[in-house]
Amino acid sequence: MSKVYQMENTFAGKIKQIVKTLVQSYGEHADIIKTDSDSFLNHSHIIENLEKLRILVFPGYFGKKHVSREMMEYYAGDLLEEVHYSLSAQIVRAMEYGGAARDTAALAEEKTFQFLAALPEVRARLAEDVQAAFDGDPAASGQDEIITSYPGIYAILVYRLAHVLHGLAVPLIPRIMTEHAHSVTGIDIHPGAAVGRYFFIDHGTGIVIGETTVIGNHVKIYQGVTLGGLSTRGGQAIRGTKRHPTIENNVTIYSGASIFGGATIIGEGAVIGSSAFITKSVPANCKVSIKNQEQQYKGASETTGAPEAPLGEFWDWVI
Amino acid sequence: MSKVYQMENTFAGKIKQIVKTLVQSYGEHADIIKTDSDSFLNHSHIIENLEKLRILVFPGYFGKKHVSREMMEYYAGDLLEEVHYSLSAQIVRAMEYGGAARDTAALAEEKTFQFLAALPEVRARLAEDVQAAFDGDPAASGQDEIITSYPGIYAILVYRLAHVLHGLAVPLIPRIMTEHAHSVTGIDIHPGAAVGRYFFIDHGTGIVIGETTVIGNHVKIYQGVTLGGLSTRGGQAIRGTKRHPTIENNVTIYSGASIFGGATIIGEGAVIGSSAFITKSVPANCKVSIKNQEQQYKGASETTGAPEAPLGEFWDWVI
Amino acid sequence: MSKVYQMENTFAGKIKQIVKTLVQSYGEHADIIKTDSDSFLNHSHIIENLEKLRILVFPGYFGKKHVSREMMEYYAGDLLEEVHYSLSAQIVRAMEYGGAARDTAALAEEKTFQFLAALPEVRARLAEDVQAAFDGDPAASGQDEIITSYPGIYAILVYRLAHVLHGLAVPLIPRIMTEHAHSVTGIDIHPGAAVGRYFFIDHGTGIVIGETTVIGNHVKIYQGVTLGGLSTRGGQAIRGTKRHPTIENNVTIYSGASIFGGATIIGEGAVIGSSAFITKSVPANCKVSIKNQEQQYKGASETTGAPEAPLGEFWDWVI
Repeated sequence: MSKVYQMENTFAGKIKQIVKTLVQSYGEHADIIKTDSDSFLNHSHIIENLEKLRILVFPGYFGKKHVSREMMEYYAGDLLEEVHYSLSAQIVRAMEYGGAARDTAALAEEKTFQFLAALPEVRARLAEDVQAAFDGDPAASGQDEIITSYPGIYAILVYRLAHVLHGLAVPLIPRIMTEHAHSVTGIDIHPGAAVGRYFFIDHGTGIVIGETTVIGNHVKIYQGVTLGGLSTRGGQAIRGTKRHPTIENNVTIYSGASIFGGATIIGEGAVIGSSAFITKSVPANCKVSIKNQEQQYKGASETTGAPEAPLGEFWDWVI
Repeated sequence: MSKVYQMENTFAGKIKQIVKTLVQSYGEHADIIKTDSDSFLNHSHIIENLEKLRILVFPGYFGKKHVSREMMEYYAGDLLEEVHYSLSAQIVRAMEYGGAARDTAALAEEKTFQFLAALPEVRARLAEDVQAAFDGDPAASGQDEIITSYPGIYAILVYRLAHVLHGLAVPLIPRIMTEHAHSVTGIDIHPGAAVGRYFFIDHGTGIVIGETTVIGNHVKIYQGVTLGGLSTRGGQAIRGTKRHPTIENNVTIYSGASIFGGATIIGEGAVIGSSAFITKSVPANCKVSIKNQEQQYKGASETTGAPEAPLGEFWDWVI
Repeated sequence: MSKVYQMENTFAGKIKQIVKTLVQSYGEHADIIKTDSDSFLNHSHIIENLEKLRILVFPGYFGKKHVSREMMEYYAGDLLEEVHYSLSAQIVRAMEYGGAARDTAALAEEKTFQFLAALPEVRARLAEDVQAAFDGDPAASGQDEIITSYPGIYAILVYRLAHVLHGLAVPLIPRIMTEHAHSVTGIDIHPGAAVGRYFFIDHGTGIVIGETTVIGNHVKIYQGVTLGGLSTRGGQAIRGTKRHPTIENNVTIYSGASIFGGATIIGEGAVIGSSAFITKSVPANCKVSIKNQEQQYKGASETTGAPEAPLGEFWDWVI
């Protein structure tokens, strides 16, 4: 940016001049300003609730350590009430944001109860997901390591919670939750995706699972896998259609494979190799791989410390 | 590390022995110690400024929530002065670090003013980037979701701010800013890159955009894309040359594609498929894809719970 | 989740009903509860120790800024004692968790001393790694930028520390350390991997280096690279075997390449191109690339703003 701005002479004069131009610019791009944001969501509160929900799903692993089975009712009851109080307030705001009429408070309270009532089911799913990680990863020393250290389990937990809220038609909050997990783990699962039982994500950084993806049971996905929608320049025109693939039971997808399209079905038991780029259906029990090619070279560069090859010539043999 | 260290007998004796060896080692690799670091940069201050700058670009979305249009001048003025005060102090340190002579204070102050004067232009660019995300992503519910939740927008914001400082020849600080965004989002854009208007990054984890990359308008880039330089073992010899590709207008690059080299030009309207590995120019309106291959297999492994195939044989058909 | 839960009528009644069902579910999936967790690890303490260890490896760059060479003994001694006190307590818990009999305190203390005694060697390795980054990256302005801003250096530092603890048979803690680095940098190096000298990770997001990987000297790895184990559905059966590849000296691996299998050896000086999917050994001084294919297209979509192509037809030519 080589433009040079002409300035006033005094310090105060300069500051005032910049403030004036900036405030003026607030009139020009008013669509990226939020001036009526009294009712806007509090991201920190939403994330605090997420941490409390994690305690409720995995008691003793997070939060208070010395949890006894006998006192569990008091501990869980207290936490649950806290979450209800805080989350229902955020749901009111989200619903008003989403265009809901007045008297959203009662409906938000009801949605929060429906959400909390689903926690035992979420626990049942997570117990299976932990089992799938143990069965699928020879490096796993045990369930404790998986629950406390595996980013994939955290991403799946947040997704399963957010998916319940998404099913209750709560706006924005589910997506804020999964984006938090995305930031922490590098795993981006849209709350709208439908993910089956015994789901295993290994390592996970870079995984993207789109809004209308459907995933069966016992599916295993490695880092860098994309289950995405084909690119479009008129995005809003196809909002709501099924744009992301369907992955059937027992499929394994290796690192960095990308699968696109709402009509694309990966058949039961298929194995997709690393880096595959798939836009059409794959039959059951089929393996897909990319093609590689090799070439010998002198390899002198390592000893000279020079660039590995004259830049631009190094990969000239590649088609 | 199977080496076993011989130890003194007493607790204090052991600690003293380790301290002695460690302090001795400080003499041996003195190049990774910083003893004159009074003038060293304060990363926390730089990141705090980044958060304040985000408020100035998107008022009401971050920071104080109940922002009114009438009071904007006071709010923005106060924030701007804070940023000026703190940032110019860091710029002084960065310039002294970069080898500048005395009397850097006045120059640093001037650079800070030039930087802040560019904020309205940064806002104009970001408004376009938000629009590009809305047009490009069918899952986007609206601009609020994009501004508050899309990691790509945060990475582009930080890049556009850092790029202004980079253009003003401020050392180190621009890179600290973009590395912070990298850590939060997984998106690594070098402040030196030149990025055009209506830039859309979807999901974004794993994206790398190198120092001398040039990107046109309406370009769309998915997670895991690399715009990089060819590897070299004598890196410092080619410092400053154009090592990263040029991406022309309206190009779309799918997840995990890697494009290398300073002479590589991706022509207008080209579409690069996932996982493509490109080291030569691609003509306009051209699609590039990798080749896949398929093979049926028995698929018995899923039922037995055994490894999916005898290890090492599973992909023997792959060339 | 379309299931609707039948509810009590009063607020308290609803909360009590949910608590009852949830506590009941704690009996059903008791394997994902930790009720005896008095002896469980404290993640925050482990991460605080990591930050103190970073100061001890790179004094003056992190922690207290005005470090003088003369006072180094006091500063390092104080920090070392703090780390010893806190870390040995965590090691006691980890060993008890790992099934160790009583009287673990003395053994944990000894392991902590052995670990701290290795710090000068870790420093020597890191000084080489910083040098490799400087030689390998034309964009690096100097060692200060590398030490303070390069995520690869942080990931390697944490790995080298965790690898020492792993060699001392300390359970869980090494993995918690590398998972922390994974969360911050997107780089996932298992503490069990054996990594040689002058190791350079550029950018790094999405890198996975598995438990039994062996890496030689002067190896260079870019973002998104996987050094992994072939997938298995009976994971625990092959626990402890060599499942991850061996990378010999002077190998360069470009972004997004995936290399699998314990018998796979990448020969000295080989260069692996982006997105390659490798399950067999590669000879020395060999380059491997995937195959690309191109097709012209009308490119009209960009002007109409319509989807780039009728969805599902866009990549029909790709095999």
